[in-house]
Amino acid sequence: MTLFSGLSAFSITPTDTAGRVDTAALARLLERICTAGAHSIGLLGSTGGYAFLLREERRRAVAAAVESVEGRIPIIVGVGALRTDEAELLAQDASKAGATGLLLAPMSYTPLTEEEVFQHMSAVAKAGDLPLCIYNNPGTTRFVFSDDLIVRLAEVPNIAAIKMPLPADGDFRGKLGRLRARLPADFAIGYSGDWGAAGSLLAGGDAWYSVVAGLLPAEALALTHAAMAGDRAQAERLDQAFQPLWNLFKEFGSFRVMYAIAGILGLCQVDPPRPILPLRSDDVARVRVAVDHLRA
Amino acid sequence: MTLFSGLSAFSITPTDTAGRVDTAALARLLERICTAGAHSIGLLGSTGGYAFLLREERRRAVAAAVESVEGRIPIIVGVGALRTDEAELLAQDASKAGATGLLLAPMSYTPLTEEEVFQHMSAVAKAGDLPLCIYNNPGTTRFVFSDDLIVRLAEVPNIAAIKMPLPADGDFRGKLGRLRARLPADFAIGYSGDWGAAGSLLAGGDAWYSVVAGLLPAEALALTHAAMAGDRAQAERLDQAFQPLWNLFKEFGSFRVMYAIAGILGLCQVDPPRPILPLRSDDVARVRVAVDHLRA
Repeated sequence: MTLFSGLSAFSITPTDTAGRVDTAALARLLERICTAGAHSIGLLGSTGGYAFLLREERRRAVAAAVESVEGRIPIIVGVGALRTDEAELLAQDASKAGATGLLLAPMSYTPLTEEEVFQHMSAVAKAGDLPLCIYNNPGTTRFVFSDDLIVRLAEVPNIAAIKMPLPADGDFRGKLGRLRARLPADFAIGYSGDWGAAGSLLAGGDAWYSVVAGLLPAEALALTHAAMAGDRAQAERLDQAFQPLWNLFKEFGSFRVMYAIAGILGLCQVDPPRPILPLRSDDVARVRVAVDHLRA
Repeated sequence: MTLFSGLSAFSITPTDTAGRVDTAALARLLERICTAGAHSIGLLGSTGGYAFLLREERRRAVAAAVESVEGRIPIIVGVGALRTDEAELLAQDASKAGATGLLLAPMSYTPLTEEEVFQHMSAVAKAGDLPLCIYNNPGTTRFVFSDDLIVRLAEVPNIAAIKMPLPADGDFRGKLGRLRARLPADFAIGYSGDWGAAGSLLAGGDAWYSVVAGLLPAEALALTHAAMAGDRAQAERLDQAFQPLWNLFKEFGSFRVMYAIAGILGLCQVDPPRPILPLRSDDVARVRVAVDHLRA
């Protein structure tokens, strides 16, 4: 397995209401991911609320993760920021603190052009000097990568992988085939969007960048193993068990649901950063049913 | 005229490459707006790049603006931030520094729910304790306000106005009529989207939240006066003179074009914050032609 392949488990980042990271709670969450045997940790991704955390707290989160994981599993750190210079500093911070790889979304306020995204990502890839995964996440950034831009970015030193959104038409093989034909053989293509994980891995995707694996890593790993082994029947059976949870992810956004799961599992009782609101108690009860269904 | 009516001129915020505000250059830009007789200054709006500036720089910009303007014209300050607590602090900073009113967009990374936007805006309106204008700008925030949410927010203390995007169908009268029927009589409804200014003011909009007025206030004010007086022929004639500039705003985004205009007018030579790139020299030449056309 290479850095950007297999199951990458994205953790929430527990904080207090002022946005200070609870490093002990974070270490508990990461320990479960290590124990389950996931292939990497996705730290400070969208699930990790990186956009809501100040630079110093992001540095503290990476340092705590590196210390608690002790080299047992690679740590891929999200370093997105609205300003290029800020993202460069975050990449350097993560690198110095011992991250294994970086993840970079083209966060934006003013919608960005392709050339702006190219220059932004190139600058951060250089500053971090670690293998970097392009975080292609139009649901949060609104930026849509063309195939041409991906091909151009794949030539930039340190840019080694891309995390793709689910194809609107569900045709993983078609999209993967078109991209692979234009990209270097060792450029990794993985997917996020948990409900498309089975399909993307069965179609030959290199990695599942998984939200749910941050809190339910063993269950996500079973699905990953089945799908990567090409066992479609078993992968689809395991995916079915996740279905009620996928429905709640779609209804409320996975970010909000993950905080509820952390409480339900007794791992930590923290709220998402405001303005994001915690789920109402009747919705939390629905999440509990979905988690029980999965673990039954 | 009330605070949220007439021509609100949105200034760029000149900074160095590290994001430090050039307060002398800012004062020069605001002086032109005062001299022209605009009805308010829009400071740290999208045009002012608020999303790219740290809290301390935003505080410095407001202090410099208040000092240079000396009470001649109200100053409406953008206080948006991804975190609610940060936006509350920015609102308090602006209030303490002497802002006249506030402008708040529901900036987001994780897409927000209506309830989240309601609670976020209510908290910031309370913290700032100044008249606040809802900044309804789906082009940068992706959040679409329902009429129901606007009606609910209009009941919150301090929330006094809304800055609307141009209606997709161009029907200002229809949208304004529907909103006015449900809103308090003193709740102000203005528009941004410079190429819709004439239409929105002729249809009875209270304010033009104008990008171009930040650098060409006299020309924008002439259009405002004609349209608010109901002189359709004159308003449309003046709007025609702006047309080449509107086309460039649409092609490149007004944020990038404004930096070019500032250089062309010899007001300041600064670049937008990276990752935003300055226009290429051949595109700047096109902006120059459009500015010359307007001022001919």
